[in-house]
Amino acid sequence: MHEEARKRDQQDPLASCREHFEIPTNCIYLDGNSLGALPKAAKTRALEVVEQQWGQDLITSWNKHAWINLPQQCGERIAPLLGAKHDQVTCCDSISVNLFKLLCGALALQPGRTKIVTTNDNFPTDVYIVQGIQQLLGEQRCQLVTVEEAGIESALNDEVAILLLTQVNFRTGNVLDMATITKKAQQHGILTVWDLAHSAGVLPIKLDEWNVDFAVGCTYKYLNGGPGAPAFMYVAERHENAFIQPITGWMGHATPFNFSSSYTPHEGVTQSLTGTPSVISMSVLHAALGIWNDIDIERVRAKSIALGEFMLECMAHFKLADELVLASPLNALQRGSQLAFKHDQAYAICQAWISEGVIADFRAPNILRVGFAPLYIGFEDIWIACEKLKTIMDQQTYLHDHFQKKHTVT
Amino acid sequence: MHEEARKRDQQDPLASCREHFEIPTNCIYLDGNSLGALPKAAKTRALEVVEQQWGQDLITSWNKHAWINLPQQCGERIAPLLGAKHDQVTCCDSISVNLFKLLCGALALQPGRTKIVTTNDNFPTDVYIVQGIQQLLGEQRCQLVTVEEAGIESALNDEVAILLLTQVNFRTGNVLDMATITKKAQQHGILTVWDLAHSAGVLPIKLDEWNVDFAVGCTYKYLNGGPGAPAFMYVAERHENAFIQPITGWMGHATPFNFSSSYTPHEGVTQSLTGTPSVISMSVLHAALGIWNDIDIERVRAKSIALGEFMLECMAHFKLADELVLASPLNALQRGSQLAFKHDQAYAICQAWISEGVIADFRAPNILRVGFAPLYIGFEDIWIACEKLKTIMDQQTYLHDHFQKKHTVT
Repeated sequence: MHEEARKRDQQDPLASCREHFEIPTNCIYLDGNSLGALPKAAKTRALEVVEQQWGQDLITSWNKHAWINLPQQCGERIAPLLGAKHDQVTCCDSISVNLFKLLCGALALQPGRTKIVTTNDNFPTDVYIVQGIQQLLGEQRCQLVTVEEAGIESALNDEVAILLLTQVNFRTGNVLDMATITKKAQQHGILTVWDLAHSAGVLPIKLDEWNVDFAVGCTYKYLNGGPGAPAFMYVAERHENAFIQPITGWMGHATPFNFSSSYTPHEGVTQSLTGTPSVISMSVLHAALGIWNDIDIERVRAKSIALGEFMLECMAHFKLADELVLASPLNALQRGSQLAFKHDQAYAICQAWISEGVIADFRAPNILRVGFAPLYIGFEDIWIACEKLKTIMDQQTYLHDHFQKKHTVT
Repeated sequence: MHEEARKRDQQDPLASCREHFEIPTNCIYLDGNSLGALPKAAKTRALEVVEQQWGQDLITSWNKHAWINLPQQCGERIAPLLGAKHDQVTCCDSISVNLFKLLCGALALQPGRTKIVTTNDNFPTDVYIVQGIQQLLGEQRCQLVTVEEAGIESALNDEVAILLLTQVNFRTGNVLDMATITKKAQQHGILTVWDLAHSAGVLPIKLDEWNVDFAVGCTYKYLNGGPGAPAFMYVAERHENAFIQPITGWMGHATPFNFSSSYTPHEGVTQSLTGTPSVISMSVLHAALGIWNDIDIERVRAKSIALGEFMLECMAHFKLADELVLASPLNALQRGSQLAFKHDQAYAICQAWISEGVIADFRAPNILRVGFAPLYIGFEDIWIACEKLKTIMDQQTYLHDHFQKKHTVT
């Protein structure tokens, strides 16, 4: 199978994309779904924005290097990946803050309705944000309702204001059918808010075609925008006039540099901006997004599926599948670009794997999570990673004390 | 006077601080109050966080390089400059977003009171944020009341929930008496929220001693954290348990990596965090803040005052004071680290000055604004800047067409 892996890498039409990235030697990085690798263009831009733009051109860079347009420019580069006309997408703040804005703004469009339905296994911050809004506005204006993924459709009725869902489950990788669910929700007059954190840059998405109302997403995973890079948000054109978000900072003003004493929202999605943008982070993101100009997202999806299937074959070959139980859907079309395996020692196994140069991650309570970033991961990487995992499991090296301490992050 | 300027630079105990910065040659930068200059340590850190931490250590940097602690580490470096015990200060998001959190949280501590009093000449985003909250919560829970700076004290009464003020007026540089006003407000049971955007790093501040309730501030002006660097916020220890902010993202959770489905706020000011921090920007900020370890803020204030007074002397010497009318207080103790001059052609004069290598800024409708960053600006800089201004005014070069186009930013 090692030979097979090499052959598939040679035939891979995306193989050359790896040249856009700095990948450490002796490292197989299966965590691009948590933090994407460093694009060479991002490194160059980081130097440029700090040394030249900030250091030499100072305040004049707001015009000279168009810092002021960065949120819009990033939005323009992300929009095609979402199947969205570009003027509906902008970049700012974090997913958490942007969800707060979208949910409050969308609630105001639904007089008489108070319920926000989401899944109990949604990424926690999505749920927490609804809890915060419920606390702020009171239950007479906002009520959180959580359901199982399997129970989404039966929770839809004419009392629901908003359906808030993440397309790809952060633990299992299970993919929800955005087109169908959106349609069914809208038959009840429900507004849909989709979190695309684990989708953007790896799944083909068609927000406009699927008639999605609002969306947020992350740029530091498959979009490789750098740690904590600004999030994106999408507001469908049909909502742009009625939608008003509540964190009305000066960057969302129609004419911020008139310093008017009264707030007038900017046209379109730009009203969603709040404070001064994080220029260094956003410049790096903008450069990172340049990679996507020449990349066909359908090809990325095809390779992502092939990588996942190949890993399952390798796991079977090494007889690891019984011990590390698949927690992701078996049907590849039903999965995002990741595989989750259950094991009571998942944390320690992950640490042992990392010590062998294979970076995956652990998700509480018992998930070993493996992500495939098709732009820089190949089939031979998967083979080698599984070979190392086989040794770890056979020799039970993960039982060593130093792999047992619990401490991990995003 | 040129000789006098040189002598004062030689005697300046802060003169050596300039070595910490990259200042472009042939540039006199009088806009550090808008965007601080590039500290050399920040440049080094930018490279390190991008090339080594992101590029090589990837996701492991959250622990290995303590990315997860950056908000707290930045807070610890800022706290002494605010006269605050360190565990009351953190860094995250923007001033606008942080004001939203503080104001909503503070309103909830004031049952039965709805009014938020601020000045009509406050920085616009502060006013806009209150307008947004009023719109979101309704006037029965939040009412914006704006007054003249001179009318602040007479607006204080037992119906007011919150007094929101900026210590240094962004246009005129007028300084409000934080200690006295806070005390008077608190006599009416009012909570105070201070915006320290134009204060931090240049005015001695004593938040704890003055019994301030809440504060926000900017790190990209006198703290030199880089364009759009994350803002800071201060929550007085006595409010830490009762205060609950509404944008309850996962980074404010007591145990974010347990991925619990229910929100429990972190202890202390850390509950004010929301989404994943902007690591690159915050690392750069952290390095920039290192400069302050060895600097006495009282000395910075003394030099700031001396620079302002010296500029007024130069303006008088060049007979510019009649034409460029001072819009800042005449009493130096009453001013922040800036001078504002009124002129109908202020925009064009500013552009002409920039073309001569002196960077100041324009604030609508008619203010030429000059800021003094005492860590890297000297007396000779002021002399040369005024000499160039004299030529511009005498020759009326600012009337040239290419200086007349209106387009400017923060």
